[in-house]
Amino acid sequence: MAKKVAVIMGSDSDLSVMQGAVDKLKEFGIPFVVRVISAHRTPAAAEQFASSAVEEGFGVIIAGAGKAAHLGGVLAAYTTLPVIGVPIQTSMMGGLDSLLSMVQMPSGIPVATVAVNGAANAAILAAQILAVNDSALAEKLRVFKAEMAEGVARKDASLQAQFQ
Amino acid sequence: MAKKVAVIMGSDSDLSVMQGAVDKLKEFGIPFVVRVISAHRTPAAAEQFASSAVEEGFGVIIAGAGKAAHLGGVLAAYTTLPVIGVPIQTSMMGGLDSLLSMVQMPSGIPVATVAVNGAANAAILAAQILAVNDSALAEKLRVFKAEMAEGVARKDASLQAQFQ
Amino acid sequence: MAKKVAVIMGSDSDLSVMQGAVDKLKEFGIPFVVRVISAHRTPAAAEQFASSAVEEGFGVIIAGAGKAAHLGGVLAAYTTLPVIGVPIQTSMMGGLDSLLSMVQMPSGIPVATVAVNGAANAAILAAQILAVNDSALAEKLRVFKAEMAEGVARKDASLQAQFQ
Amino acid sequence: MAKKVAVIMGSDSDLSVMQGAVDKLKEFGIPFVVRVISAHRTPAAAEQFASSAVEEGFGVIIAGAGKAAHLGGVLAAYTTLPVIGVPIQTSMMGGLDSLLSMVQMPSGIPVATVAVNGAANAAILAAQILAVNDSALAEKLRVFKAEMAEGVARKDASLQAQFQ
Amino acid sequence: MAKKVAVIMGSDSDLSVMQGAVDKLKEFGIPFVVRVISAHRTPAAAEQFASSAVEEGFGVIIAGAGKAAHLGGVLAAYTTLPVIGVPIQTSMMGGLDSLLSMVQMPSGIPVATVAVNGAANAAILAAQILAVNDSALAEKLRVFKAEMAEGVARKDASLQAQFQ
Amino acid sequence: MAKKVAVIMGSDSDLSVMQGAVDKLKEFGIPFVVRVISAHRTPAAAEQFASSAVEEGFGVIIAGAGKAAHLGGVLAAYTTLPVIGVPIQTSMMGGLDSLLSMVQMPSGIPVATVAVNGAANAAILAAQILAVNDSALAEKLRVFKAEMAEGVARKDASLQAQFQ
Amino acid sequence: MAKKVAVIMGSDSDLSVMQGAVDKLKEFGIPFVVRVISAHRTPAAAEQFASSAVEEGFGVIIAGAGKAAHLGGVLAAYTTLPVIGVPIQTSMMGGLDSLLSMVQMPSGIPVATVAVNGAANAAILAAQILAVNDSALAEKLRVFKAEMAEGVARKDASLQAQFQ
Amino acid sequence: MAKKVAVIMGSDSDLSVMQGAVDKLKEFGIPFVVRVISAHRTPAAAEQFASSAVEEGFGVIIAGAGKAAHLGGVLAAYTTLPVIGVPIQTSMMGGLDSLLSMVQMPSGIPVATVAVNGAANAAILAAQILAVNDSALAEKLRVFKAEMAEGVARKDASLQAQFQ
Repeated sequence: MAKKVAVIMGSDSDLSVMQGAVDKLKEFGIPFVVRVISAHRTPAAAEQFASSAVEEGFGVIIAGAGKAAHLGGVLAAYTTLPVIGVPIQTSMMGGLDSLLSMVQMPSGIPVATVAVNGAANAAILAAQILAVNDSALAEKLRVFKAEMAEGVARKDASLQAQFQ
Repeated sequence: MAKKVAVIMGSDSDLSVMQGAVDKLKEFGIPFVVRVISAHRTPAAAEQFASSAVEEGFGVIIAGAGKAAHLGGVLAAYTTLPVIGVPIQTSMMGGLDSLLSMVQMPSGIPVATVAVNGAANAAILAAQILAVNDSALAEKLRVFKAEMAEGVARKDASLQAQFQ
Repeated sequence: MAKKVAVIMGSDSDLSVMQGAVDKLKEFGIPFVVRVISAHRTPAAAEQFASSAVEEGFGVIIAGAGKAAHLGGVLAAYTTLPVIGVPIQTSMMGGLDSLLSMVQMPSGIPVATVAVNGAANAAILAAQILAVNDSALAEKLRVFKAEMAEGVARKDASLQAQFQ
Repeated sequence: MAKKVAVIMGSDSDLSVMQGAVDKLKEFGIPFVVRVISAHRTPAAAEQFASSAVEEGFGVIIAGAGKAAHLGGVLAAYTTLPVIGVPIQTSMMGGLDSLLSMVQMPSGIPVATVAVNGAANAAILAAQILAVNDSALAEKLRVFKAEMAEGVARKDASLQAQFQ
Repeated sequence: MAKKVAVIMGSDSDLSVMQGAVDKLKEFGIPFVVRVISAHRTPAAAEQFASSAVEEGFGVIIAGAGKAAHLGGVLAAYTTLPVIGVPIQTSMMGGLDSLLSMVQMPSGIPVATVAVNGAANAAILAAQILAVNDSALAEKLRVFKAEMAEGVARKDASLQAQFQ
Repeated sequence: MAKKVAVIMGSDSDLSVMQGAVDKLKEFGIPFVVRVISAHRTPAAAEQFASSAVEEGFGVIIAGAGKAAHLGGVLAAYTTLPVIGVPIQTSMMGGLDSLLSMVQMPSGIPVATVAVNGAANAAILAAQILAVNDSALAEKLRVFKAEMAEGVARKDASLQAQFQ
Repeated sequence: MAKKVAVIMGSDSDLSVMQGAVDKLKEFGIPFVVRVISAHRTPAAAEQFASSAVEEGFGVIIAGAGKAAHLGGVLAAYTTLPVIGVPIQTSMMGGLDSLLSMVQMPSGIPVATVAVNGAANAAILAAQILAVNDSALAEKLRVFKAEMAEGVARKDASLQAQFQ
Repeated sequence: MAKKVAVIMGSDSDLSVMQGAVDKLKEFGIPFVVRVISAHRTPAAAEQFASSAVEEGFGVIIAGAGKAAHLGGVLAAYTTLPVIGVPIQTSMMGGLDSLLSMVQMPSGIPVATVAVNGAANAAILAAQILAVNDSALAEKLRVFKAEMAEGVARKDASLQAQFQ
């Protein structure tokens, strides 16, 4: 059975950003669940979720959080699954606090960090991870890439025409 | 019985910095324990320690950690005791990663953050917290402050003489 | 008699942020006063307040200020009470100026710094400090934490349902 | 047959850092190759490698580079495999240039970024990715995590004893 | 025949900024083309364009991109023409990510970087480069500089009058 | 005769900020002129102004500029008068570019830098400089300081009353 | 009688930097005193010094301090004399903490900030301030500037010769 | 006759960095002069050099400077030649002050900025600019690029062998 992806956010106020991950997972047909789990307010839920994620059938965990964004690290502490971190933009230098809190993990416990507010990329990365052993999904990614390139090519043609 | 202070560090490589806290606690005669607990490598120990810290007789927890420094936040998640964070200096902008990971805590779970490598100040802050209801300790802090002022005054006199 | 908390701001324009501290102190039933004292414009008031804060019955001082935010440090210079600093957000890298001016205190005079605009957390930290020797207040904090966790759990349940 | 991991660096001067990835991959028994490919000096080699990485049996690509660190992004442009970026420390704010050049990828082409100089974590992340469908490797990761925890616990015991 | 300038942007959403380059090139009567080429989404187009730019009659390439802004570097990898980089403003510290990703190029492959959103200056720089061997264009630049100075002088006179 | 203050800005778009200096100079009754002089677009005007500023009766020069804010340094290069720099806020980290371009002057040629957008403070500093040998102006500054303190005290009283 | 300059530092460990100011003041024949006064450890000394600085015959105050560098601001709060701030280099982004703590002063109380570790420039600025009404000192500054230019010209000639 | 390149530095202490430009210009057989000209200490020399650079036979100006690095901008103000800026590394965030002071030029006066300490790249960029109308030089650049690629390929082969 296909592994699921967990989309976890530290606060439901992060949903507008994390929706980008949800949309991409749907697009790729990857089963997923969406959760609100706070590293600081519901640490027991974080532990409980991460500890049982493998046996619950998850293959990848996406964690979106802002400021002192510990969510990715806390989940990674309790699982051997790859954890993808999405730093949420803040008013502190555009989210540098979220980014450094996620990416600067100590040796032994990585969090695979994507761009600030990069929820769509987190989902694509999750798909790439699952596609390592799923050639149908890998094919979908190839198609996605090709369509993306075609989209840029169309805009390129349009702009070339406009400035001729 | 006097409340104890816990001096917790994420790695024993932080001891050279955190020794500054130990020294000041000794100076003030405050009972303390020193622990190595990693938010990411030994999360169960972090939870276990913080959850039982009140009943174990602790009054304040000092947490020193570097990079994505989650230790303070993870401990604070499991206790109502005041948690003081000491961001450890790193090569990333002198420890801005440690500082932001500690101080930018979300609403509901504060970490009382001191300067990068400010372990001595963490111990002084712990003493100030315990002294709110301990007039003997408050008196020690007044004496400490007076001696510090006298030390500066002596250096001031010495420098004035040197440049006369 | 219960110790009071002082909520001091460098300018009344900081009130919209510092109201977050006032609200939380009310919620916990902690007596407090609100003051406008400027480290630079009314230094005598700062000295006068901090010097007599212990005998006036204060247990904790919260200081909110922005830019070259010296208020916390100036108050801490004149008292042995714990001083909590709230860096106010500015246009300079989102308040990095306020944060560094507060947190990077020299050895001997700590300021317990919370997140940029973290006024609510400053009040929670003040409550945690007072609760070290006040088991009724400690119980209120445990209830507060439990309710916060329940709030997150409700949102979690709601989001899980929404995406099923 | 087991998927291989590619450890690619932009310059052989990065080897001292990237050796950390090599060591961990050996430790986990994961087959790997080491390459020097420059996004800017040998772009054709980058394209050639990334375009054929799937059919060459690679499962994950690790890319270490410094300054305007485009290597990860350039490789990711030509493959659907997960690409892990290791920002190499520089004199520019401790490697903030490398970090931002790697992590701030545009929508569509993620690079899974780990900490500055976090080569060991890149290898662990690669192992976690391969372990999603390799229970023997997943077991190795669980053992690795347990041993790491035991190591911290030993240091904790030692430090507790030292300060008793 | 006069060399052309290429104005290339990573996304058509950058057009509002890059229009500044187009306008200045028109003003100087320099022939140009406008393209949308993405370093990551259409890497083959980037290679194809840069590899043939000399024989296609281009003298300078202007590349505008944001975030992990690799476009300039990727084009520079495939050509010996001077490549001018325009870092596009982002929410990450006002575009520091774009700036560092462009300017911090490794030895061997320079990108001539102008200010964040400095598209007009990119075009002026392109004109300066072409004018090294084109005295008519050099004369246009001298006139442009003189008119700029006159414009400032007029505003100076107006402000002096206003405050007299 | 009283020395004049020059308020110079690099662009008339800086007037909304620099008006703060004009207003304060008027308040103190200090004679002044307002100029638009660009370090880069009208360098000859900058040289001409600064070279003759002493004989034209100026005592202090205030220079407001943004981004690569060279105006203060260029003026200081041509005069021995004190030059006060006002870094204008930009989108690059809130004006860190303007600030560093002004304050980080090499040994030999200082620019007295005030806060980002601190035009009023530039005028107060100019007044302080002129007041070193002008006791009437010094008295005005004392009155200004006292009124500022009274203003804060009134707000303090008002806020104390509001929260009683 | 000639006005004196006060060279004040927050700690005698700052002397190696502040010696640069002492040397320049000697070079210009300006009378000065050197003091160690801490804004936080000896706030009463700071107040006492600044309050009486005018009547003690001082014309300018130079304040050197590091980290949360409040010394300049605290002195400025108690005097109408111009206060020059020298941010001392630290491990936090090379002294950005010291710089922002000094320069970002609130409206009403300026501190004339020079470069990080720019003690010599602080003395030159003090000389420029005193020279506004002291033509002999102004002449010394002109000579100093001319000699500096000659020094650069000599090095220029030497380098031109070397590379011919 | 071949256009010359000027290698100008703000201080002879920058020579160790700027030597990298000299070496590359020699390698390409481009005639050059080396000068020490300070934007602030010898502004007249800067003006004189830049104003006459075209008629003196220069095609490109390379300017290396640190801190408030105005040299590039000051030269660009007086010429229509392309000016390449080399920000010299400093202790302020690794040279961010130099970088921003150079790259953030206002509209109308670009400085083509390369990496911090990127003197070799400045020379390569100068060669690329001169090669726009010099096919022999363009051929040298193609050979240089090819050799660079071969150098990387050799290291790649060596490293592949080492880890086989």
